[in-house]
Amino acid sequence: MTQITIQTPDDWHLHFRDGDILTETVAATARCFSRAIVMPNLVPPVTNAAMLTEYKSRILAAKPAQSNFQPLMTLFLTNSTTVEDIAAAKQAGAVACKLYPAGATTNSDAAVSALDAMFPIFEAMAEQGLLLLIHGEVTRHEIDIFDREKAFIDEHMTKIVARLPQLKIVFEHITTADAAQFVAEGPDNLAATITPQHLMLNRNDLLVGGVKPHNYCLPVLKRSTHQQALRDAVKTGSKKFFLGTDSAPHEKHMKESACGCAGCYSAWSALELYTQVFEELDALDKLEGFASHHGADFYGLPRNEGTVTLVKEEWQIPAEIILPNGNPIVPFYAGQTVNWKLKAE
Amino acid sequence: MTQITIQTPDDWHLHFRDGDILTETVAATARCFSRAIVMPNLVPPVTNAAMLTEYKSRILAAKPAQSNFQPLMTLFLTNSTTVEDIAAAKQAGAVACKLYPAGATTNSDAAVSALDAMFPIFEAMAEQGLLLLIHGEVTRHEIDIFDREKAFIDEHMTKIVARLPQLKIVFEHITTADAAQFVAEGPDNLAATITPQHLMLNRNDLLVGGVKPHNYCLPVLKRSTHQQALRDAVKTGSKKFFLGTDSAPHEKHMKESACGCAGCYSAWSALELYTQVFEELDALDKLEGFASHHGADFYGLPRNEGTVTLVKEEWQIPAEIILPNGNPIVPFYAGQTVNWKLKAE
Repeated sequence: MTQITIQTPDDWHLHFRDGDILTETVAATARCFSRAIVMPNLVPPVTNAAMLTEYKSRILAAKPAQSNFQPLMTLFLTNSTTVEDIAAAKQAGAVACKLYPAGATTNSDAAVSALDAMFPIFEAMAEQGLLLLIHGEVTRHEIDIFDREKAFIDEHMTKIVARLPQLKIVFEHITTADAAQFVAEGPDNLAATITPQHLMLNRNDLLVGGVKPHNYCLPVLKRSTHQQALRDAVKTGSKKFFLGTDSAPHEKHMKESACGCAGCYSAWSALELYTQVFEELDALDKLEGFASHHGADFYGLPRNEGTVTLVKEEWQIPAEIILPNGNPIVPFYAGQTVNWKLKAE
Repeated sequence: MTQITIQTPDDWHLHFRDGDILTETVAATARCFSRAIVMPNLVPPVTNAAMLTEYKSRILAAKPAQSNFQPLMTLFLTNSTTVEDIAAAKQAGAVACKLYPAGATTNSDAAVSALDAMFPIFEAMAEQGLLLLIHGEVTRHEIDIFDREKAFIDEHMTKIVARLPQLKIVFEHITTADAAQFVAEGPDNLAATITPQHLMLNRNDLLVGGVKPHNYCLPVLKRSTHQQALRDAVKTGSKKFFLGTDSAPHEKHMKESACGCAGCYSAWSALELYTQVFEELDALDKLEGFASHHGADFYGLPRNEGTVTLVKEEWQIPAEIILPNGNPIVPFYAGQTVNWKLKAE
C-alpha cells in the first residue's frame, strides 16, 4: 500500500502546556487531529470550572485561523475536589477528569494521595457522564519504577473498576502486558490509550549506548516483551484500545539536564509513526479503528467528518524546533526517518 | 565512632582518561589512594606495550609533585591481541588485561567480539602472571539491558572460570545478586570489584522523578534487591570483594545531552561514600579489608604502608568542578552531603 485514507482521527491524550507555546503545540496537533483530550496538569493545575473555561479560551485563541480543531477539556482531580466542582466542570464543557497519583509525573504534586476518599467523586462523575482518565502508577518510594503500573492495577485499578461499573474509565498510556491484559479482559466501561513511543520502543532505547532523555517518559519504557504485548493488543483491532499520543513538550534544556523532565513531544509525527507501526504489524486495516473510531465511540462522541490521507514517503523529523519564546525543543524521533507522510489538503 | 584510621587504600578500577584532564583526575585519586588500576579504554585504546608505557608516563607526569601515587597499568584486549603482545605488556609493567565485550561501554568499539578465540591469550596471561579484568555484559541488541550481566555469567563467565583455574579473574563493577553469588561461590582465583554508586543507589535513583544522567553508568543501576545483595556481600567481609570506584569522568555537556555518556566521576568522594555505606551497614570494621587489603592480596601485591584517617564530619560535594580545559564536570553525588571526610595529613 502506498496511500491510506482514514476518517479524521482524534488524539485522546496530550499536553498542550500553556502560554505562548500554545501556538506551537495546538497547531502541531491540529494539522491532523480534529479533537484532543487536553491534560490539565498546568502550574497551578486546572482544578475548577473557571480555570478550565479560561484554559480552553487560550487554546482556541492559539489555534490556526483556518482550523476547526476542538479541544476536549479535563479537570485535574485532587483530594479537595468536591461534587460541586464536578457538576460545574461538566457545565463548563469538561468531558473527563484526570486522576494523577501525587508525584506520578510532571506537575502532579498537587494530585491525589488518598485514593479511597475519591469514590464519592467518581460516583458524581458517573452521574454527570464524565469519564475518569487514570495515570496508573503507584508512587511509593520503595516500589521499583518498572513495577509501578502493575502495582497500581493490583492495589487500585481492580477496585476502581469493580466498584464503578457505571463509570467510563480510560487507563491512560499503558505500558505493560499486565495493563493490556487487564483492559482486554475488563468490562466494556474500561479502555486504554497507547502512545507511539510505547509501541515503537523499549527500555533498551532509553539506556543502551548512552542515556537518551528524549526517549524518557512516564510511565517509563518497559522491557521488549511489554512493547510486544502492546503491539499485539493494537493488532487485534479491539475497540478497547485507541490513540493517545501523550505528546508532552519540554524545552530542550529541561530534557538534556541533570534531572530531565518526562515526556516525548510527538505531535509533529505521531499519526505518521502510528501508521508506520501498523504497517510493520501488517495491520494497516486496523489503523482507522484505533485512530478515528474507538476513542470517539468510547467517549460517546460522534466520529469526525472528513478524512486524512497518508502517503508512503520518507521524510525526516527535524532535529529541533524553535518555540515562540526562542528556545529550542527536540521533537520525538528527532532527526530520524519516517516512512509515512500526511498529505497536504 | 567519629574517626576511623585504615591502612592506605587502593582503587582497583578507574578511568583517568588522557590529555590535560589528567592533572584533575590523577590528583583527585592520589589524595587518598596509593595505587589504582588504570583502565585502557582511550581513543585509540591501549593495545600494546609502547602505548602502555607512554600512557603511564603521562599519568606520572600529571600527578602532584609530593605524591607517591603509583598507576597500575592494564592492556586493552582485542581480537588482534597476540601472545607476544601479552609478553611485551608484562615486560612493560602491566599487571592485568581488560576484556571489554565490543560495544559494552565508553570507547569499547574496538574490543572483543569473538570471545572463544581469546582462550590462548588468556592462557598466555596466566603464564605471565597477568590478571584478567572483565566487563561482564553481553551486548547483543535483543538482550534487555538489565539482563546483560546475568546473561554474560551464563554464556561466558562460567566457561572462562571453569577453563582457566590458573588465571586470576576480576569480575569488574558487579551490579547484580547473580554476580555477587557467582563470585562468592566461585574458586579462589575469582574476585570482584564494587563501585560506590552500585552500593548506594538503584535504578529508581536513575529514573524516578526525572532521568538523572549523572547516575547513569554501565553496567546500569539495577533494582533495589540487587543493590541489597551487593551491600550484603561487602558486609560479609569476604576477601573476594574489594574497592573499585569505576570513577569515569565525562564533561558536563557529554552527560547532560541527547545521548549521555556512561560513567560517574566519583574520585572526589569515593572513599568517603564507601565509608558512609559501611557505617550504614554497621560494618565499619570491614572497611579496611574491602578498601586496603583484599585487592592487594588478590593481585599478589604488597599492602600499602601508611594510613589514612576519616573523620565523621559533614561536607558537601561541589556542584561542578572546572577542568583544566575550562569545561565543567559534575562529580558523582554533586551538591549532596557526605557524612565522612578524609583528614588532611
